[in-house]
Amino acid sequence: MTTILALDAMGGDIGPKVVVEGAAMALSRSTQRSLSFLLFGDKTLIQAELDKFPDLRQKSTIIHTDILITNDTKPAAAVRMGRKSNLGMAVDAVAKGQAHAVVSAGNTGAYMALSKILLKTLKGIDRPAIPAVMPTIKGKTVVLDLGANIDCSAENLVQFALMGEAFSRQILNLEHPSVGLLNIGSEDLKGNATVQKAAQLLKDIQDLNFSGFVEGNDITAGTTDVVVTDGFSGNIVLKAIEGAAHLFKHLLEKSLSSSWLGKLGYLLARSCFKEFKARIDPRFYNGAVFLGLKHIAVKSHGGTDSIGFANAIHVAVQMAESNLIDKIEQRLNLMANAESSILDHA
Amino acid sequence: MTTILALDAMGGDIGPKVVVEGAAMALSRSTQRSLSFLLFGDKTLIQAELDKFPDLRQKSTIIHTDILITNDTKPAAAVRMGRKSNLGMAVDAVAKGQAHAVVSAGNTGAYMALSKILLKTLKGIDRPAIPAVMPTIKGKTVVLDLGANIDCSAENLVQFALMGEAFSRQILNLEHPSVGLLNIGSEDLKGNATVQKAAQLLKDIQDLNFSGFVEGNDITAGTTDVVVTDGFSGNIVLKAIEGAAHLFKHLLEKSLSSSWLGKLGYLLARSCFKEFKARIDPRFYNGAVFLGLKHIAVKSHGGTDSIGFANAIHVAVQMAESNLIDKIEQRLNLMANAESSILDHA
Repeated sequence: MTTILALDAMGGDIGPKVVVEGAAMALSRSTQRSLSFLLFGDKTLIQAELDKFPDLRQKSTIIHTDILITNDTKPAAAVRMGRKSNLGMAVDAVAKGQAHAVVSAGNTGAYMALSKILLKTLKGIDRPAIPAVMPTIKGKTVVLDLGANIDCSAENLVQFALMGEAFSRQILNLEHPSVGLLNIGSEDLKGNATVQKAAQLLKDIQDLNFSGFVEGNDITAGTTDVVVTDGFSGNIVLKAIEGAAHLFKHLLEKSLSSSWLGKLGYLLARSCFKEFKARIDPRFYNGAVFLGLKHIAVKSHGGTDSIGFANAIHVAVQMAESNLIDKIEQRLNLMANAESSILDHA
Repeated sequence: MTTILALDAMGGDIGPKVVVEGAAMALSRSTQRSLSFLLFGDKTLIQAELDKFPDLRQKSTIIHTDILITNDTKPAAAVRMGRKSNLGMAVDAVAKGQAHAVVSAGNTGAYMALSKILLKTLKGIDRPAIPAVMPTIKGKTVVLDLGANIDCSAENLVQFALMGEAFSRQILNLEHPSVGLLNIGSEDLKGNATVQKAAQLLKDIQDLNFSGFVEGNDITAGTTDVVVTDGFSGNIVLKAIEGAAHLFKHLLEKSLSSSWLGKLGYLLARSCFKEFKARIDPRFYNGAVFLGLKHIAVKSHGGTDSIGFANAIHVAVQMAESNLIDKIEQRLNLMANAESSILDHA
């Protein structure tokens, strides 16, 4: 079976060049499966890039539009431009069943708004969230939301917890993942009204393995399999962890380069640095899914290169092939039936 | 001149043992200056610990109270217990001029509430904030607030920016420190209404070197000398950075221990690990000042040991000796005169 991908060719800081190169890279990597692409945007610009990759050209169709959503377009304006824009057409192709998944490096707010309208959210979910799979001391932890939702209600956080739990079951292959709520302390008294209310609601969900509040250091400690937070703190915390890894590497290199023995130590430790760097390289975990939609929409970082965009495509293909959304929907329905009061309330 | 410290002997997870041991350690370290201590709390418990340290006993006075604020006491209840409690008496000793500074490892909310009431805030400051000095790739950056204020208005953030700027001038010895506002993106459109309003207000302060929005990774990159955020995000982000450093160390050790050469590399790199570990060891930067008060109140982490508590005392002594609060007050007044509209509004 061919997996058809709808690509917003104009999204991101660079546009068609990165998108087309990324698609070519993803195609060349896809030995076991068949991929084809729908490219939405300015035909002339896209064609010029596509002509550089004959294999990809064979598998691609360009759908032209003059109505272009860029990184500067406000979400409200993007919604008005809607189905006739590059981004809207790409999303709509999935809604209409013409493609299995959409990938865009465009403006997050605009992409999210159009995806919510055209792809609809799963039952019981008001707003999609972006999860990340973080390396931890124990293994891996799903953290969400990473920036799709700046202001969150307690009910939003509860829904993120349910989605995160269902997602981690599939992605991390866990039987009964534990879920923590990010806060400034683990005591019940701590935090703002939103997290306190969310914790109360989560405690009442019997089928959920809720571990209560966790703190910033618990993320990389791997204290819980899922860490739930609003998109503001989540985005800041993910970037801070990336930054801390860079600082550690910098300090270690500086310290080691000060002596002959240190330099030798650095040389020996170098492959480990590389390994770690790869683990935290944003390009290799680029491709964040909008969790909670009825279809697959993957967001690539706007500033990524073609390697990063290829990885975002890879994420979309994997999701399509593993029927991830169906499985998450089944799990959410199961919990909704058991705890109808919670989800109805939300 | 003798520096007199008011210590809440009952605060923290362990109470008198850690506080008294910490005081003894601080005293033995203070070769060039003279210290004396007022210890507030249960006389019997404190005396038992004090008898272990004859030098400290000579320099200490116990002030007994039966009204004890513990880590479980809610701020509102602590305020009601007020001046007659261990914590309230310790804070009040500074307000009355009987001590130069107060140090407590007790409940942050209760301590903050009592300090605001008894010690009062500086002109133009509504709520004190807790700053941290973080290691960065470029040197050091002041980050605030680290958890004193969970819900912050735009005006609170503006005041944190002014206090952080004044603080970094003194602590980091900078001429014209740059100030960034923590957000989920550097574009003007990003973030919630609070950070957007705060950015607008900060742009209008002519004498402030405001650099606009910074992101999570900018903290350890050292992009700006000061990073301003609310206490919720600030607390989470600081702990996440600590956690990331532990993860990095763990992965590196694991990776290096897998081969003979790797083990050698680890051995050579070990002193660097130690150096870094010390830099991020919470005990060595334990002792967070409530910035924005008219007197010196230092908060020790509740779970710290005597080394950590000694360091908190050291911070209080340094602040007292350097007249830090006077200098910050002068700077705030200077900016307030130049920008009276901003501070009057706040």
